Amino acid sequence: MNYRMICYLLGKVLLLLAVLLLLPCAVALIYGEGDFLAFLYTAGVSALMGGLLQVLRPQKRNMRTADGFVMVSLCWILISLVGALPFTLHGSIPSYLDAVFETVSGFTTTGSSILSAPELLPHGLLFWRSFTHWIGGMGVLVFMLAIVPMSGDSIYLLRAESPGPSVSKMVPKMRTSSLILYGIYLGLTVLQFLLFQLGRICGWGEMSVFDSLCITLGTAGTGGFAISSSGMANYSVYEQVLTTVFMILCGVNFSIYFFLLCGKFRLIWQNSEVKTYFSVIFVAITLITANLLSIGFFDSFGTTLRHVSFSVGSLITSTGYGTADFSQWPEFSRVVLLIVMVIGACAGSTGGGMKVSRILILGKTLRAELHKLLHPHAVVRTTMDGKQLSREAVRGTQAYLVAFMTLFLCSMFVLSLEDLGIETTLSATLTTLNNMGPGTSAVVGPFGGFGGFSALSKLTMIFNMLLGRLEIFPVLLLLRPSTWRKN
Amino acid sequence: MNYRMICYLLGKVLLLLAVLLLLPCAVALIYGEGDFLAFLYTAGVSALMGGLLQVLRPQKRNMRTADGFVMVSLCWILISLVGALPFTLHGSIPSYLDAVFETVSGFTTTGSSILSAPELLPHGLLFWRSFTHWIGGMGVLVFMLAIVPMSGDSIYLLRAESPGPSVSKMVPKMRTSSLILYGIYLGLTVLQFLLFQLGRICGWGEMSVFDSLCITLGTAGTGGFAISSSGMANYSVYEQVLTTVFMILCGVNFSIYFFLLCGKFRLIWQNSEVKTYFSVIFVAITLITANLLSIGFFDSFGTTLRHVSFSVGSLITSTGYGTADFSQWPEFSRVVLLIVMVIGACAGSTGGGMKVSRILILGKTLRAELHKLLHPHAVVRTTMDGKQLSREAVRGTQAYLVAFMTLFLCSMFVLSLEDLGIETTLSATLTTLNNMGPGTSAVVGPFGGFGGFSALSKLTMIFNMLLGRLEIFPVLLLLRPSTWRKN
Repeated sequence: MNYRMICYLLGKVLLLLAVLLLLPCAVALIYGEGDFLAFLYTAGVSALMGGLLQVLRPQKRNMRTADGFVMVSLCWILISLVGALPFTLHGSIPSYLDAVFETVSGFTTTGSSILSAPELLPHGLLFWRSFTHWIGGMGVLVFMLAIVPMSGDSIYLLRAESPGPSVSKMVPKMRTSSLILYGIYLGLTVLQFLLFQLGRICGWGEMSVFDSLCITLGTAGTGGFAISSSGMANYSVYEQVLTTVFMILCGVNFSIYFFLLCGKFRLIWQNSEVKTYFSVIFVAITLITANLLSIGFFDSFGTTLRHVSFSVGSLITSTGYGTADFSQWPEFSRVVLLIVMVIGACAGSTGGGMKVSRILILGKTLRAELHKLLHPHAVVRTTMDGKQLSREAVRGTQAYLVAFMTLFLCSMFVLSLEDLGIETTLSATLTTLNNMGPGTSAVVGPFGGFGGFSALSKLTMIFNMLLGRLEIFPVLLLLRPSTWRKN
Repeated sequence: MNYRMICYLLGKVLLLLAVLLLLPCAVALIYGEGDFLAFLYTAGVSALMGGLLQVLRPQKRNMRTADGFVMVSLCWILISLVGALPFTLHGSIPSYLDAVFETVSGFTTTGSSILSAPELLPHGLLFWRSFTHWIGGMGVLVFMLAIVPMSGDSIYLLRAESPGPSVSKMVPKMRTSSLILYGIYLGLTVLQFLLFQLGRICGWGEMSVFDSLCITLGTAGTGGFAISSSGMANYSVYEQVLTTVFMILCGVNFSIYFFLLCGKFRLIWQNSEVKTYFSVIFVAITLITANLLSIGFFDSFGTTLRHVSFSVGSLITSTGYGTADFSQWPEFSRVVLLIVMVIGACAGSTGGGMKVSRILILGKTLRAELHKLLHPHAVVRTTMDGKQLSREAVRGTQAYLVAFMTLFLCSMFVLSLEDLGIETTLSATLTTLNNMGPGTSAVVGPFGGFGGFSALSKLTMIFNMLLGRLEIFPVLLLLRPSTWRKN
């Protein structure tokens, strides 16, 4: 373990965080609200800690896989602990544990809130909550790689932080890849923000500039913090449809947009993950719409389709915004939403869940196994997008499923101590482990809050959210004693 | 596919079934009840069909793995369809679908009943229900292998029918292995039955000979059909404790008893599956007892321990008998029971669930994968009980998990159409897929029935039970078109 290098990089991250904290500070100053001091203090603390961590220069700059994983996990824990300070310093979330929950929920793009009325927060803190989604969505280390020149094996950092079973380097140079990723990400964000403004100018909606900024940041990061207790229900049809489209777009593997920009349409067409992703969305919307229409839940086809598309888009990308309280929908619809939520978005997107590519890999291995049963001596080649699946990818995906199931049961185990009913326990576990946000049950549904849980449950859910965002293994490695052994 | 050989063997199975049907027929005659005719007719039909299927002698007697799997699946479907006839012929279960549900539930040792008051059945049918548990527990083909001289690769049949990721041949000769298995099985059954009689003679209980016979058959097969609507609640403490002990004993890998008889105590001590099995039982009983005592659910420690041990024993072996309505217990206890139920009994026992050895294999691969992350170039050997785990066992286990999860979601999907609430849908799915019996929710709890479900749901659950008992792959192979292609 190259401890000095890890400390040095963590210092860099904290310096970056100090700079980022100046943005919400500026927002607070613009609105002339008192929370700017909380941001200033926190930025100071972050800069000081960052400076101290960099005192000892690393002698060797090389990092191994394990260093990368440990570094990424520690980085996410550290920025959450520091990023939570403004909430407590300002006093709007007095309990530091609650503030950490809120910040972890922000950075991991979960969007589960302990606040029942977020509109009571000052503008600076509201902006900071949504901004954590945006930072966490594409990854804080990817961001650092994009702006800080780095030598050494930075691919390890990217691999540990990027969602999905494998990392697609779009171009040979790591830093250029990160820059392209963030460029596309920024582009989508700016486009959505501008379209919101266009809507206001044309009279299709009345969302304020501040609201639209926060909603855009939460959409791009597929986070889902609502900025008012009514969620997205009070916005106009145009604004809801626009959010639906951008949620779904942000669940697509970002390398697809790169191929689009380069004109490599054949590569897009060959991509089975993206095709499956859109097919799942289409089938889910059809099934739920039919189910709701059959019982006349909403008064028109248009309204039904709008709410269903929004919910499916929100759940498959694990954003978690809500226009309708789907916990009141019939059970069939809720089970479809549950399945969609477990499947999740594409690898290499800002979305959560198992990821479509993992589902594809597992499906293909299952087929291969059935074939093997019939023909025990056959050599079965499992391919995806024309390329053979590496044994590592298959093994890693299967281990991920096992780890996910184990953690799922462990979390159920702890949360069940609250005695809130199996459905709530299940929802709270799935929602945090998948970085979803709201669950499918009444207590933690799209219009419920997480404030009422015990400290133990909150800690478990914080752990779940980190496990979910970093895809389990980096965080699990922290708990293994042999990780810390010197060799 | 060696169709002639499959037909020939299916014919043999039906002839065997005709003979077995004479037993409940005798019971009906002893009690002088009218259901003996239903058994006679069914035995006649079974014998006739069996004879017809054997008309064409197979030219080649060799079978491949695929034939074995197909044969086992078809065999189980066939005996369920025929075994359901007495219920409908006698008129006590007028709907044939319901009768098939009841019979599949019997053979697969699930124990989920569509009857709300089984005590209304005549004695012959009551005995037949419990007897199907006993036949299905160790496997109908294992039974056939034990009594019918067979040439050819009968290991394939045993492999497809025996629970668990691998089959332990106790002795080199297949037929001797089957005989030993059935000998031990019969021994345990007779021992429990005699202990029940001893209890009655000594005044420790008042269970009638008929009741004790049915309960014993259901315990040995870990089936769990109750013979009265009050389940096991009205029996004496001695009878409940005796049943607890024998349920747990029947969840142990039967080769352990063989080693015990041969005096190979070291092999038993080395067996990590059995050690884990007993550890899980101990931990679960401790946790739930502590939970129930803390809220003072029962009035004494003794009563608590008795009900908890019974429930844990019943759920880990997937028997499904109930002395207490655990759906009223606090959520923590129910989640522990849920986890115990998913883990299941040992491979090579009559119990259901995932099987302890599969859990061990998955845990070991997860550890190995974490190690691989830290040391990408290390060669990691995964061992169990001192022997290296074969790649086939690992791959098969992982595929099993994937298949289980997929089927689980598919079943949830269909059952959710009934709109009975997520917990009921979840319970009904888990309970049938694990061959459990009662679920953990009020509707399908230990004192609820399955009669109220729709035909579609019943079909899904019938399919689930067969998938669960035959461990998914044999049944899935039936659905693959290429299985039926001639080559």
